[in-house]
Amino acid sequence: MTAKDALNLVKEDVEKVEQFLKDDIKTSVHLINEVILYLLSSGGKRLRPVFLALSARMCGYKGENIPAMSAVIEYIHTATLLHDDIIDGAKYRRKCPTANSLYGNDVAVLCGDFLYSRSYITLTEYGAKQVQMILSSAALTMSEGEVIQLLKTGDINLTFDDYIQIITRKTAVLFSAACEIGGRLAEVSEDKIKALKNFGYYLGLGFQMTDDILDYMGNPEITGKKNGTDLFEGKLTLPVIKTLEKTNDSEKNIIAEIFKKKERNDDDLKVLKDIMIKYDIEKISEKTADEYINKSLNSLNVFEDNDYRKALIALALAMVGRIA
Amino acid sequence: MTAKDALNLVKEDVEKVEQFLKDDIKTSVHLINEVILYLLSSGGKRLRPVFLALSARMCGYKGENIPAMSAVIEYIHTATLLHDDIIDGAKYRRKCPTANSLYGNDVAVLCGDFLYSRSYITLTEYGAKQVQMILSSAALTMSEGEVIQLLKTGDINLTFDDYIQIITRKTAVLFSAACEIGGRLAEVSEDKIKALKNFGYYLGLGFQMTDDILDYMGNPEITGKKNGTDLFEGKLTLPVIKTLEKTNDSEKNIIAEIFKKKERNDDDLKVLKDIMIKYDIEKISEKTADEYINKSLNSLNVFEDNDYRKALIALALAMVGRIA
Repeated sequence: MTAKDALNLVKEDVEKVEQFLKDDIKTSVHLINEVILYLLSSGGKRLRPVFLALSARMCGYKGENIPAMSAVIEYIHTATLLHDDIIDGAKYRRKCPTANSLYGNDVAVLCGDFLYSRSYITLTEYGAKQVQMILSSAALTMSEGEVIQLLKTGDINLTFDDYIQIITRKTAVLFSAACEIGGRLAEVSEDKIKALKNFGYYLGLGFQMTDDILDYMGNPEITGKKNGTDLFEGKLTLPVIKTLEKTNDSEKNIIAEIFKKKERNDDDLKVLKDIMIKYDIEKISEKTADEYINKSLNSLNVFEDNDYRKALIALALAMVGRIA
Repeated sequence: MTAKDALNLVKEDVEKVEQFLKDDIKTSVHLINEVILYLLSSGGKRLRPVFLALSARMCGYKGENIPAMSAVIEYIHTATLLHDDIIDGAKYRRKCPTANSLYGNDVAVLCGDFLYSRSYITLTEYGAKQVQMILSSAALTMSEGEVIQLLKTGDINLTFDDYIQIITRKTAVLFSAACEIGGRLAEVSEDKIKALKNFGYYLGLGFQMTDDILDYMGNPEITGKKNGTDLFEGKLTLPVIKTLEKTNDSEKNIIAEIFKKKERNDDDLKVLKDIMIKYDIEKISEKTADEYINKSLNSLNVFEDNDYRKALIALALAMVGRIA
């Protein structure tokens, strides 16, 4: 199955999610509407709703709660991006100007707060207590992850385990929650719930690793992002950690000096990328991302084969750039 | 009954709230603990928990959920203050340095997000669906209020109705929610719930008006706040609105020019205060605040007289500086 076929399987669900989002965000404060509709319509791929819907459908769910639960996840995801962009001083996301650059930090902070509250209202209205707990805990964990990342900025002693801790919180918990909720909606057994949680968790890790590799190695024409964003923000990610495992002392010092600087520029990026190329870091990092994606796919073994399971596999592979 | 006697009535409840807060905020991220414990211990008066507890006890509540519900309200309140202080660039609150000035805006944004999520976890764990809805809606409304306030900054055409709309959202909804939840815990009739909602709502309005009057007229040695904060931040509040209702055209122009400036200083404050004194604005504003407090007190008429009711009245009067 191709990724396109996979998306087609839940096309109707995702359309309902879009409609739900439009109907659900209603406030008399025009500016909030404007900012949030801008954010929700600026190129997000609705990955989490897709995985939620496929997980639910794979488990035989026939109910109507996919749009509401997907909306809650998109609100939390969007609120997180909004506040992250403030912290990173980001000017663009997915080729569009960020809300903080268009509307100012003040409005962006408050619209993030609005989205968190909006998510809990919808969650209270449509979600069982267990699902409420999964998502509010995920949101809490995500804010912790951002603080850890902030504290570790520029720290070249960051270990691979530290990195996993950060991307678990930043990315994997919400993917894991999305897939788990798919299973919870369908009320499947706890071992299947566990399998879905693991699927989403390892998928999230593999996806974030791929994203972090692309940040150094991706073609900006395809990714829509300039190379080196993480470097410029002083964030140590998988390719740098893998590089530091390979380099000799003099190269280590060069990298340490780069991360010690108050600001980094394209020259620093070139120096770092040359070292990465020397040690074949792209391939080494991809191997690690692949390991996590394989763990993700293996989690699906407890499910009987059906089109939705095939679709989950196809999309998981597509997300890490492997042809499905 | 004096305000002190009133507080004594729920001393045990408030101590349990303090303990709950300490036990409930637990995260492996040390910095978040540090920031939040700093915030929760820096001179907050726990007004909302006091009103929640008194409302619940007045209605005969004997259960154990006052600490958890109070904690949720304190989390939301604290998260709001945290993000407001970022937006206002505030350096001090209650004589203590703000979190943004001590830890930076980044950490303050994320700790606010953490508190919102923490509030919803505790709310999901301890709150009935109805109470969850009351509090998540209150949080949503508060973020809307901040945006409206931001949009109206420096706008001298702000009407009294606009002002009520802003302080309703900023302050009154959370007081109203606290009192309503007291009644919901005790499972009283809907007319009593409505009375408690109104009590808290008008109390919140009166309290905010008093705060806004003190911002111009208060004795900094007593309030712990420098005069003129609202003016410096370009916020039009009750005393300015009342002043603009009284002044002649030339004075109106002077005030308009002051609010048009990019930044305002102590000289501007002096000019404005002199005009206020000329028109006896302190007394006029206090009269308006009193009207709202009277509405608040009248809402309690549906309840039989008991010590808790007396305490609510005593504290409501104390909050607007009237001797109980």
